[in-house]
Amino acid sequence: MERKRGNQTVFFNNKPKIIGHYSIVGPKEGKGHLRKYFSQIEEKDDFFGQKTYEKAERVMIERALDGAIKSANAKYSDVHLFMAGDLLNQIISSSYAARSFDIPYVGVFGACSTMAESLALSACLVDGGHFDTIACATSSHFSTAERQFRFPLELGNQRPPTSQWTVTGSGADVVSIKGNGPRITSATFGKVTDFGINDVNNMGAAMAPAAMNTLIAHFKDTNTTPDDYDLILSGDLGKLGSEILIDLMEDQGYKLGLNYKDCGQMIFKRNQNVLMGGSGCGCSATVFNSIIMKKLIAGEYKKVLFMATGALLSTTSSQQGDTVPGIAHAVVIEGVEK
Amino acid sequence: MERKRGNQTVFFNNKPKIIGHYSIVGPKEGKGHLRKYFSQIEEKDDFFGQKTYEKAERVMIERALDGAIKSANAKYSDVHLFMAGDLLNQIISSSYAARSFDIPYVGVFGACSTMAESLALSACLVDGGHFDTIACATSSHFSTAERQFRFPLELGNQRPPTSQWTVTGSGADVVSIKGNGPRITSATFGKVTDFGINDVNNMGAAMAPAAMNTLIAHFKDTNTTPDDYDLILSGDLGKLGSEILIDLMEDQGYKLGLNYKDCGQMIFKRNQNVLMGGSGCGCSATVFNSIIMKKLIAGEYKKVLFMATGALLSTTSSQQGDTVPGIAHAVVIEGVEK
Repeated sequence: MERKRGNQTVFFNNKPKIIGHYSIVGPKEGKGHLRKYFSQIEEKDDFFGQKTYEKAERVMIERALDGAIKSANAKYSDVHLFMAGDLLNQIISSSYAARSFDIPYVGVFGACSTMAESLALSACLVDGGHFDTIACATSSHFSTAERQFRFPLELGNQRPPTSQWTVTGSGADVVSIKGNGPRITSATFGKVTDFGINDVNNMGAAMAPAAMNTLIAHFKDTNTTPDDYDLILSGDLGKLGSEILIDLMEDQGYKLGLNYKDCGQMIFKRNQNVLMGGSGCGCSATVFNSIIMKKLIAGEYKKVLFMATGALLSTTSSQQGDTVPGIAHAVVIEGVEK
Repeated sequence: MERKRGNQTVFFNNKPKIIGHYSIVGPKEGKGHLRKYFSQIEEKDDFFGQKTYEKAERVMIERALDGAIKSANAKYSDVHLFMAGDLLNQIISSSYAARSFDIPYVGVFGACSTMAESLALSACLVDGGHFDTIACATSSHFSTAERQFRFPLELGNQRPPTSQWTVTGSGADVVSIKGNGPRITSATFGKVTDFGINDVNNMGAAMAPAAMNTLIAHFKDTNTTPDDYDLILSGDLGKLGSEILIDLMEDQGYKLGLNYKDCGQMIFKRNQNVLMGGSGCGCSATVFNSIIMKKLIAGEYKKVLFMATGALLSTTSSQQGDTVPGIAHAVVIEGVEK
């Protein structure tokens, strides 16, 4: 059967469904706006019972994967592939978490776009009939990200006003051709976009142009407008990045209205001292796999455009004077079929 | 149509083909055994005209991608997705290379298994009808890997006898449903395997158990034996790792004979002072995309099992006392259909 294809957008004929989902967060996220929606909150501290933050991060992925599979009423042996990635060098959180499961594994990397990237790829593989059931996950951890990308926490450095706060959390989904759940109906794969931002404390601005490109490609490929979605959800542009996106879109003739939200602005409360809001792979992963999935399942949202953005830099690229390229991948998720 | 599926193996009904390929290497690799097979050799030095080794590595990917697309007689606009990954933190070589092309991009990471991982995923996406044509690539660079994973070259550290030499090179393929070329007929996705090796200078030993697991899964899923292949090619186990694999397989009742080769042992000459042989994502990528692809196209090989292995560690995991998990993904490539 010939599949419908747009320039950057693929359409899924066989209705891959999200039959399981799970979100786990740290104490700070648990005190935020979405407290009642998360599957699990670690209240005590962000070590998750481990000796290092890096080991804590992989425990989050393990618990998220385990929880998503259980929430799908599935067994490990029902899951034919695990697809994951994260921000740590060589995505060790994902790979070491995968070690605990007897499931074939592929690593992916899209920085903070990883949740959308892995959902999009999983939907392709399930829709194409190569796998019945795939689990995908991503994570981030404030303390591992800070010491890898910025400064050791012990230094107590001041944070610039444009900075965001890396979410400590992990989200996982089980995508399957069987079972029931919200359907992934299309995916738009983004292009790397670089508008010359070189301020590593202003990721929102670096990612907004990529978000704009992917949104416009999506609307053109699918012949839709922002009004066709109950919710357009960006990953972690934060307050500044979202405002830039709204302006950029308006310049291109697209009005993002009240149905546009950003995970980075949803997760924390104003008094939590997070400046421009949440960020990190775990930001969109936990917001999507808490309030958004619950509202999709409840029928409150019928059609959601979930677009996660990533800043594709490393400390080495910054030290060598490179600007920060961004990317954004988007998936359309529609409510449970009656 | 119901697709044939093994436990870890997927089969491709629609014959995705490798319609273009390219390999580019540095001066040392150009003096090795495969000199006459590489598409491009940088003879002068391993800076590739850049100021830093990291920028040099991304130039290799750019040239490999460009060369593969040209060798497929395709235009950039014919390629609907670029899939790549590499060893550098946050896979900057791939992402920054992708910035130069107006092609949707997804990042992947499987350490030195990346060439097989990206070929396997690309074959799924093309076979499933979601994309007509996908380019995939990976790279490694001796000087970027040394200073990221080990020591700055300027220190002149002595190399332990079990160590391997990271290949400076990049390979790229164009996988398409159209055109003609060797066909990808199945892919086996590996599981993360950890036998407790914690010597970061003995990657071959860390990866051999993963290679064994994937080979056995492949033979069982496809109901084949080693004799059914003209060539079984591992990525970069090197001399020691290959010998361990041969022993492990023999213990399991599989005899790897003269049709088994390892890219890490093929690329350099004995007098090039590389100890256990070549390694890095670029090792299997350049060997596969030089002599192997040429022999597949010439009909000298009719059926090749290409399995690339990856060691999924980072400097952080090593510093925290973790052992080294390995993974291996395999693809079967069969000769051009007459």
